[in-house]
Amino acid sequence: MTGELDALVERIVAQVRARVEAAGGTPLPAVTGTWQDESALRLGVAYGADRLGTAAHEPTGPLAADLAGLIDHTLLKPTATRRDIEGVCAEARRHRFYSVCLNSTWIPLAVRLLEGSGVRTVCVVGFPLGAASTEAKASETSSAVDAGAAEIDMVVNIGKLKGGEYDAVLEDIRSVVRAARSRPVKVILETSLLTREEKIAGSALAKAAGAAFVKTSTGFAGGGATVEDVGLIREVVGPEMGIKASGGVRTARDAARMVAAGADRIGASASVAIVTGGEPKDPT
Amino acid sequence: MTGELDALVERIVAQVRARVEAAGGTPLPAVTGTWQDESALRLGVAYGADRLGTAAHEPTGPLAADLAGLIDHTLLKPTATRRDIEGVCAEARRHRFYSVCLNSTWIPLAVRLLEGSGVRTVCVVGFPLGAASTEAKASETSSAVDAGAAEIDMVVNIGKLKGGEYDAVLEDIRSVVRAARSRPVKVILETSLLTREEKIAGSALAKAAGAAFVKTSTGFAGGGATVEDVGLIREVVGPEMGIKASGGVRTARDAARMVAAGADRIGASASVAIVTGGEPKDPT
Repeated sequence: MTGELDALVERIVAQVRARVEAAGGTPLPAVTGTWQDESALRLGVAYGADRLGTAAHEPTGPLAADLAGLIDHTLLKPTATRRDIEGVCAEARRHRFYSVCLNSTWIPLAVRLLEGSGVRTVCVVGFPLGAASTEAKASETSSAVDAGAAEIDMVVNIGKLKGGEYDAVLEDIRSVVRAARSRPVKVILETSLLTREEKIAGSALAKAAGAAFVKTSTGFAGGGATVEDVGLIREVVGPEMGIKASGGVRTARDAARMVAAGADRIGASASVAIVTGGEPKDPT
Repeated sequence: MTGELDALVERIVAQVRARVEAAGGTPLPAVTGTWQDESALRLGVAYGADRLGTAAHEPTGPLAADLAGLIDHTLLKPTATRRDIEGVCAEARRHRFYSVCLNSTWIPLAVRLLEGSGVRTVCVVGFPLGAASTEAKASETSSAVDAGAAEIDMVVNIGKLKGGEYDAVLEDIRSVVRAARSRPVKVILETSLLTREEKIAGSALAKAAGAAFVKTSTGFAGGGATVEDVGLIREVVGPEMGIKASGGVRTARDAARMVAAGADRIGASASVAIVTGGEPKDPT
């Protein structure tokens, strides 16, 4: 990572830290990451090799099968009915996906359907605009965790990120992290709506707030995960955080490229096609 | 309204009422409406004439000026920043719009900016997918009301409506109505995603749950308000409820057609163009 990028991340973090401390808030965790460290660690562990073995950079052969365990099998369309959710949960059991990723109205149903399967239930929060109040996001998180959600995928407050209101962005994420009570929280940046500087700031703030993952996209804003964005986020957050590549990941080849770029989780609705080599169904 | 439509609405309401009462819940308010009543009342009062005078069916002349008082001036893009919200609130003061309509993250700011202006602050809830949990919608509503929101525009649970889970749809709306503590609640159906039967069911359930308005669209799902949908909703809910036409209303002529069809509120981002006759800016 360049010195320029380093300086930018550190400036963002220092600015937020100063405001939080001036306001008498809980001190921020250090955001040291390893973006200063061009080591083999970053190139090896961080770029997904720890979960995919040495094949991570070579998207062929047994990778497709391994991919299932990295996939959040996703159905977020507002028109999805109970029957559709049942279908997605059955597919996730059959193909041993890492999880299903659903809107919060469906969490109790999915948790019940997936009991004993080893497939987790992931809940989106403040989805897809990220413009819900912090209280609403925290409450949605808390209800989802009560209902058995294993992970939370929240959308960052995009407007406040773009407006440079970093303390508000940080507090929004921290409130969700607190409400998640140690369940991993992913912060969706919606990269297609952000400048490079905003992507860096969002990633740094997600890390400072104690999130577990940065996630690229909702799938609702046009655009989606790119190799460039995954690489940039990895540079900012270092190897300790996860990266979820989502939005437009439709084939095993797409997924493998994301993993090679640094992703360690894939969000997809075309998950069955990804692991079987079939044709993807309709998006989202 | 046809006897067929009558029977359909009554069947929906009877079904929900039986389930609620079997479960020992609070009895539903009667959903009598006046859809059985092809009277002058419906053609006069219900079709907006009470608020627009006799010009309601003739979208010319002084109507454009009168329209300002019917408009929820709307900015819901996730990329909107504090500066954009300030701009919308200034426009609403200048043109005396009925309200500004915003995502919940911006309610405290808008309430402060609009203090003393007579312009209300309207908050969207569960927006735009409607697939947030009932607890999340109620909490978002409660926080918005605490912050000074005057009205709540919630998105119906589209998937449960499509799946025929009418008791869940009803309880979702009722929870928001309770959390709104007597502030008017509008139920957004997202008509472009619904069949005719689903539009009827959604309207009947909104009325049964004690909502004040049915609203056509979020503006995020493609499609928007149509004259046919406004007329259909008016037939179902009768004259006691409001109808907000939103989505694709870009000119004074669009707005006047909606009012003539039965709308008594207009949701628009092109509000300034509507009242000045200028060119609309970018949508949403």
